[in-house]
Amino acid sequence: MKSEVKTAEQLAKEQREISVAEFFEKNRHLLGFDNPMKALMIAVKEMVDNSLDACQEAGILPEITIKIRELSEDRARVSVEDNGPGIVKEQIPRVFGKLLYGSKFYKMRQGRGQQGIGVSAALLYSQLTTGKPAIVISRTAKGKPAHEMHIRIDTSKNEPEVIKDEKFEGNFNDHGTYVEMEMEGKYRKGDRSVDEFIRQTAIANPFAKLVYHVNGEKVTYSRIIEQLPKEAKQIKPHPQGVEMGVFEKMIKMTKGRTIAGFLSGDFTRVGPNTAKDILKLAKVNPNTKPDKITREEMEKIWRNLQKAKLMKPPMDCLSPIGGDVLEKSLKKDVGVDFTAAITRSPDVYRGMPFQVEVCIGYGGKLDPAGSAQIMRFANRVPLLYQGSSCAITKAVQDIAWKSYHIEHQNNNPTGPLVIVVHMASVWIPYTSESKEAIDPYDEIEKEIKLAKQDCARKLKTYLAGQHRRMLEGKRKGLFEKYLPEIANNLSLLSGEKDAEIRKHLEKLLSKGVVDESENGESEGEIKSTGEESS
Amino acid sequence: MKSEVKTAEQLAKEQREISVAEFFEKNRHLLGFDNPMKALMIAVKEMVDNSLDACQEAGILPEITIKIRELSEDRARVSVEDNGPGIVKEQIPRVFGKLLYGSKFYKMRQGRGQQGIGVSAALLYSQLTTGKPAIVISRTAKGKPAHEMHIRIDTSKNEPEVIKDEKFEGNFNDHGTYVEMEMEGKYRKGDRSVDEFIRQTAIANPFAKLVYHVNGEKVTYSRIIEQLPKEAKQIKPHPQGVEMGVFEKMIKMTKGRTIAGFLSGDFTRVGPNTAKDILKLAKVNPNTKPDKITREEMEKIWRNLQKAKLMKPPMDCLSPIGGDVLEKSLKKDVGVDFTAAITRSPDVYRGMPFQVEVCIGYGGKLDPAGSAQIMRFANRVPLLYQGSSCAITKAVQDIAWKSYHIEHQNNNPTGPLVIVVHMASVWIPYTSESKEAIDPYDEIEKEIKLAKQDCARKLKTYLAGQHRRMLEGKRKGLFEKYLPEIANNLSLLSGEKDAEIRKHLEKLLSKGVVDESENGESEGEIKSTGEESS
Repeated sequence: MKSEVKTAEQLAKEQREISVAEFFEKNRHLLGFDNPMKALMIAVKEMVDNSLDACQEAGILPEITIKIRELSEDRARVSVEDNGPGIVKEQIPRVFGKLLYGSKFYKMRQGRGQQGIGVSAALLYSQLTTGKPAIVISRTAKGKPAHEMHIRIDTSKNEPEVIKDEKFEGNFNDHGTYVEMEMEGKYRKGDRSVDEFIRQTAIANPFAKLVYHVNGEKVTYSRIIEQLPKEAKQIKPHPQGVEMGVFEKMIKMTKGRTIAGFLSGDFTRVGPNTAKDILKLAKVNPNTKPDKITREEMEKIWRNLQKAKLMKPPMDCLSPIGGDVLEKSLKKDVGVDFTAAITRSPDVYRGMPFQVEVCIGYGGKLDPAGSAQIMRFANRVPLLYQGSSCAITKAVQDIAWKSYHIEHQNNNPTGPLVIVVHMASVWIPYTSESKEAIDPYDEIEKEIKLAKQDCARKLKTYLAGQHRRMLEGKRKGLFEKYLPEIANNLSLLSGEKDAEIRKHLEKLLSKGVVDESENGESEGEIKSTGEESS
Repeated sequence: MKSEVKTAEQLAKEQREISVAEFFEKNRHLLGFDNPMKALMIAVKEMVDNSLDACQEAGILPEITIKIRELSEDRARVSVEDNGPGIVKEQIPRVFGKLLYGSKFYKMRQGRGQQGIGVSAALLYSQLTTGKPAIVISRTAKGKPAHEMHIRIDTSKNEPEVIKDEKFEGNFNDHGTYVEMEMEGKYRKGDRSVDEFIRQTAIANPFAKLVYHVNGEKVTYSRIIEQLPKEAKQIKPHPQGVEMGVFEKMIKMTKGRTIAGFLSGDFTRVGPNTAKDILKLAKVNPNTKPDKITREEMEKIWRNLQKAKLMKPPMDCLSPIGGDVLEKSLKKDVGVDFTAAITRSPDVYRGMPFQVEVCIGYGGKLDPAGSAQIMRFANRVPLLYQGSSCAITKAVQDIAWKSYHIEHQNNNPTGPLVIVVHMASVWIPYTSESKEAIDPYDEIEKEIKLAKQDCARKLKTYLAGQHRRMLEGKRKGLFEKYLPEIANNLSLLSGEKDAEIRKHLEKLLSKGVVDESENGESEGEIKSTGEESS
């Protein structure tokens, strides 16, 4: 047996740089591409997310067409076409053919994408499983030419390769982008399917028209509202969400000419006076040039910033869906009897603004016997996998459902109930690159829990009312059954005509019940019957 | 409100490349650095893994000194020093100061590291939380100078920055490497502590001497065996673990001059004849130059390779710990009464060879009331976090413990039991970059389950024996209690002297029991009492 024992010099020769594309090629499960069913959903998700982000940034009401065609047992072709602003020709190769390339990573603003991995990961997977390039067609304005490009990733360099680059002469939207990929993929219906992703996307993005074709069948989700959500503004970082190492990097890269100017110019919620106070505490001259600050001074300034009483970051970087909009969406989608919603005030985790919204729906067409459906959203994107490690699921299981008159099994609520939870933030702390679950930070879990409790309280009141109505109905039924008997007895006692008494009693009875069922406010009246406890 | 609506050209200007270091800086929880306690453990783990890998590659029996010193409430200094082969000066900056750089990513061979992320991720975290560089001292051979370097990562480029670069004049090992980092970190004792990591590392690496100092206290784990494990050989990829996209890349990069030469030269288990057969099925001329193969031909060849009956890959790329060694380790560490171990034959998942070993220990100093401890290892590295998503834990919960006479709660075994599971593979499919859990591939889970069942069966036999011994003991106790009475009665009946009968009976009694306790093989004898059922 030849020995392979090595010296430091031999070991050194084996060291190599690993391209991030190769890394994910070998670890594709980290990107969510673990199996053919899921891969198809993730690919559609990444393409649709990009389309929605682009439309919103360009102020265009989105119209998106998604097509899936199964080609064989384990292969499918997926395409997504939008009416967005299009992509300038020079950018197309890198947007689709390079991992860790994007516009959202450095922005402090709510958006669907944040990592610059999504759609290029789908291309990587498609290439890995079929060897075929992605087809992209895009036009940026009417009158300008549409370009068609076929793109691959050179995984050993993580750089795009353009296979074909031509003017597209066919019919194409005035502006927009079309992306098509072939991949190992299986279409299935069910809880975590592409169908479900599209359906939930429509709920959280009611301003988008989605046209969905699968194997030739077509479903259209029309708009529920006709305007785009409020624009999310870009903000500067809050000092209390910035770690020492990043603070140092910011000092190196600042355009501020003094350290005081750096503090008040590069951060939100640090004015010139606050900057002076902080620097006084750190014993640093406010006029020092940033590149003259020593390591120790840096650390002192940073520590004082962390302890300072600063205002929370501004919240116009967020764009919640809105409770009323969610209720509308849910009623249209599910057909429930009752909805309640709340949009909590924004809060902050690690310096990052975020906001939680919850909407619950009850009754109607929902299955009274099954478990409640929990719909999870992060920046309007449905999360279908990894529920058990998600802050949203954990917060659901943390609620004492029994005390809201809702049945549960192992703390998972059951009955004809749907719970929609949306977290909006400038940075969603996902548990993995596949963006399937939200890391359960304490602050986030707490907000979700409070929002859910609020909705659950409203549901409890509604259910109590419903219970009373049911009891009232039962009483009425009993009374009606014995009414002839009672009328007869009263007639014998009073000498009045049986039929007269009967008519009178019937009128009384119907009045009380009609009042109740026509007017939701009349709970107090009925409460006075004092029979609602059970 | 100023509108921020953008055109395609404006959007294009915002697109940027994101460095992988920046990506992980913002997503450090993906690397396992979620909290100060865990961060400390992960940092130690990455450094120790590197030391052990280097020593094994160089054929050196490892002696590793780990030091932790808490500096304040939330800050600690960590250092690891080894007697390994050292690192040549030119490589030091990139080994520590660049993510995705390493020697193991491309190797088909069992090793602790595989991604080229570990120790540079620790440096990234240290820099992020303290702003300080890592200190590295290394010497490659006696007589050569030792170098001291202070290293940081330029996160916007993912490139190392060398702050200090000097000959080290102090005392230093003949050969080896010293690494020191300061970081936000907390030392705590317990299940997932650095203590536990070191302890379990000693169990799975009984050929290593580990000296562990924490806040001035010292623990030494001496070697249990005095030789290094069998070397793991590097193998070529197996065609049935290679996806279409990678296959294509291999064709492009091959040094083979014909497609037949490529198949038989670049893969394991494809000889010249097999190559010819495959190419015949794919209708491709075996003498075609690899760069002349069309996309369709490629796909045909690949599909036929996937369907072909090929031998499993060679297994000398694996280096299991060995059942007997595990039993020794466990006995020394825990002090158990009983151990059983099995090393399963190697198997394959997605073309990757892997092998499972299980060792269980019972009784002794283990807590009879608590839950069983499960120790998880991947390529000899202890896995302390994310147990619930790990193939090993899932396999434990999948076993009907009751049928092995082991109590359980929700399928988690309880009692004085420790279960050690080791998976060795050329590629461990971790569920995240932090390498905390093994993805539950069916093939892997099945092997783990079979190995555990084997050990559990042995434990069942042992426990049954123990149970019989206990019943026997009880019988003896009862008999002793009534012995004077019985002797007295027998004396009255037979006329023999009371004391004589008593002596006789006592002799009989002690003989039966002594036989049983001195000789483990005597179960059959006692079984014949026919009283063991319960």
